[in-house]
Amino acid sequence: MKVLVIGAAGMVGTKLARSFGTDRAADVDSIRLVDVVVPSVPAELAATDIATETGVLDLRDVAAVTSVLADRPDVIFHLAAIVSGEAEADLEKGYAVNFDGTRNLFDAIRALDGYCPRVVFTSSIAVFGAPFPDAIPDDYHLTPLTSYGTQKAMGELMLADYSRRGFLDGIGIRLPTINIRPGKPNKAASGFFSGILREPLVGQEAVLPVDDSVRHWHASPRAAIGFLRHAMTLDTAPLGARRSLTMPGLSATVGEQIEALRRAAGDDAVALIRREPDATIRSIVAGWPTRFDAARATALGFRAESSFDEIIAVHVADELGGRIGPR
Amino acid sequence: MKVLVIGAAGMVGTKLARSFGTDRAADVDSIRLVDVVVPSVPAELAATDIATETGVLDLRDVAAVTSVLADRPDVIFHLAAIVSGEAEADLEKGYAVNFDGTRNLFDAIRALDGYCPRVVFTSSIAVFGAPFPDAIPDDYHLTPLTSYGTQKAMGELMLADYSRRGFLDGIGIRLPTINIRPGKPNKAASGFFSGILREPLVGQEAVLPVDDSVRHWHASPRAAIGFLRHAMTLDTAPLGARRSLTMPGLSATVGEQIEALRRAAGDDAVALIRREPDATIRSIVAGWPTRFDAARATALGFRAESSFDEIIAVHVADELGGRIGPR
Ligand SMILES: NC(=O)c1ccc[n+]([C@@H]2O[C@H](COP(=O)([O-])OP(=O)(O)OC[C@H]3O[C@@H](n4cnc5c(N)ncnc54)[C@H](O)[C@@H]3O)[C@@H](O)[C@H]2O)c1
Ligand SMILES: NC(=O)c1ccc[n+]([C@@H]2O[C@H](COP(=O)([O-])OP(=O)(O)OC[C@H]3O[C@@H](n4cnc5c(N)ncnc54)[C@H](O)[C@@H]3O)[C@@H](O)[C@H]2O)c1
Repeated sequence: MKVLVIGAAGMVGTKLARSFGTDRAADVDSIRLVDVVVPSVPAELAATDIATETGVLDLRDVAAVTSVLADRPDVIFHLAAIVSGEAEADLEKGYAVNFDGTRNLFDAIRALDGYCPRVVFTSSIAVFGAPFPDAIPDDYHLTPLTSYGTQKAMGELMLADYSRRGFLDGIGIRLPTINIRPGKPNKAASGFFSGILREPLVGQEAVLPVDDSVRHWHASPRAAIGFLRHAMTLDTAPLGARRSLTMPGLSATVGEQIEALRRAAGDDAVALIRREPDATIRSIVAGWPTRFDAARATALGFRAESSFDEIIAVHVADELGGRIGPR
Repeated sequence: MKVLVIGAAGMVGTKLARSFGTDRAADVDSIRLVDVVVPSVPAELAATDIATETGVLDLRDVAAVTSVLADRPDVIFHLAAIVSGEAEADLEKGYAVNFDGTRNLFDAIRALDGYCPRVVFTSSIAVFGAPFPDAIPDDYHLTPLTSYGTQKAMGELMLADYSRRGFLDGIGIRLPTINIRPGKPNKAASGFFSGILREPLVGQEAVLPVDDSVRHWHASPRAAIGFLRHAMTLDTAPLGARRSLTMPGLSATVGEQIEALRRAAGDDAVALIRREPDATIRSIVAGWPTRFDAARATALGFRAESSFDEIIAVHVADELGGRIGPR
């Protein structure tokens, strides 16, 4: 099987590429990793006999998108995106990458006769916008409150239409907020959800801009990779024309996150969280979903964590070499 | 107030233009009617002192779209569309007109500084796709089963995003199937819903390709114009970010339509309906919505008919000069 990963230099893309080294379940012969910046090949993947190539691809470049499909990959992971904050700040770039880029990919696939690859598209719970019922059901309408969420929802619609017409075999994965996101703090409005755990776990300060009562929907990076790998081989027939799925996750408050941190790393770690209420972030977060009833995805075998203790344990194992505390 | 109607040569556009002659409630100084084919000016509108202009506009032509906005109309009715059957048969044309054309309009509006017109966009219940609950609530997800419905849903998403960002003041009107559609029979899969009334009312044969038990969601052309006129001046603040509304309508079976025809025009009229079951039309229609709980729109003052007797009476009054029977 030939696999193409678009957006392979990103956080999820890098971990997905690594997973093909550590979990050989799927019958993969070759992997091509592409992104606007050259992706690196994770050591675990390089150590396998899977033929791996890397390349530069800008989804806005129609000719380049066409040529990356020349060898007709069987599975395409489309992970490339401008994140929420940037798509809000730069309207044109957000539409150009998140929507037109997605459409360029789908149209380039459509242009190839007799070709119908599995396309795994990372959507987001940002397709939803408040007000919400207590638990958001699978048939709840998409009313995004950001341009990013709008662009993802438009991509979902085209994925479903092009799947229905037989141009591609699509599955949209609405990722929860990934927690604990590894790496440096970034400027995403959601950044603190990871920051208040990630920084204290290595003895550093973190800022908390919202109240402890704020509730949100989370899954670990490991769970996210599990979703994508599961989507790669899932039988899509039961999806019918409804090709996008809200992924299972953990509904937890900031307060619950902090108590899990206390159990894992003690009061000293918790003391590193500095409360700096921020009205802007507060109001953005107020529009975000808090809890889903992800019945469809659960029935199809998608699995996430059930406690923040687990989410922290995943991070300590996968990112900290098993060791909590200053580096 | 300056009004621009795009798609003004169509069935709805013509009736909307006429309504500005017959119902002077709104404070309208000028109306520009544009379409890919030159629209005509209804006599009722020509008889008023409203300055009326007509012109050719193809929404696919970005420069032309920009120039039609030069005098900054206060209200824009965007009714232009390739209908369902054509959008399914010609994928590229459907996306080009129904989606890109809509986007061209929204982007041309966005490009004008300090301009934020009311935009009334005709969407459709084709944004919904089976399976459905018994009555589809306002917060039900959009899972279109046609490319036309997909394009309308994508337009709704951009309308909401651009309204949220303050580029325009949008309202999306999800029209029920318009019944009785005046004019000649056309090839729309939904055509028979009108045909089985329209033709027999003037002594002509009509074909019924589905069972009498088929249920669907209807409103008269007069109700549709009422929706658009109401949307023109409605306070959009209560809509929040949820800019598209499912319109009220009448949920009725084909059998109920036929009984209303019998009451209006007798057994002889009913005898003109020829049953010719058509498996293709049957299966298309099976994916269509049957009943909505249009609570939001109803609370906002949108009104439709409550019986097919009324719908037939509207047609007899507005299209047949009050007289049933052969012409
Ligand atoms: N991380 C999360 O919490 C989260 C939540 C929901 C959805 N998602 C989605 O999952 C996917 C992966 O997320 P991530 O956290 O790895 O994001 P990321 O920002 O780390 O990675 C996205 C990658 O896309 C690449 N990219 C940007 N523009 C491109 C273009 N024009 N052509 C090709 N590549 C381009 C970037 O260079 C980057 O490497 C994205 O689609 C994101 O929207 C992520
Ligand atoms: N009639 C219905 O039952 C119904 C139901 C739901 C939604 N709608 C929607 O209501 C609107 C009006 O419907 P209608 O029944 O009057 O349709 P219609 O086909 O009679 O009118 C549509 C008009 O759009 C024009 N048009 C097509 N391409 C164009 C382009 N590129 N640029 C400019 N104009 C273009 C056509 O020339 C036509 O005059 C449409 O948006 C339609 O999708 C109608």
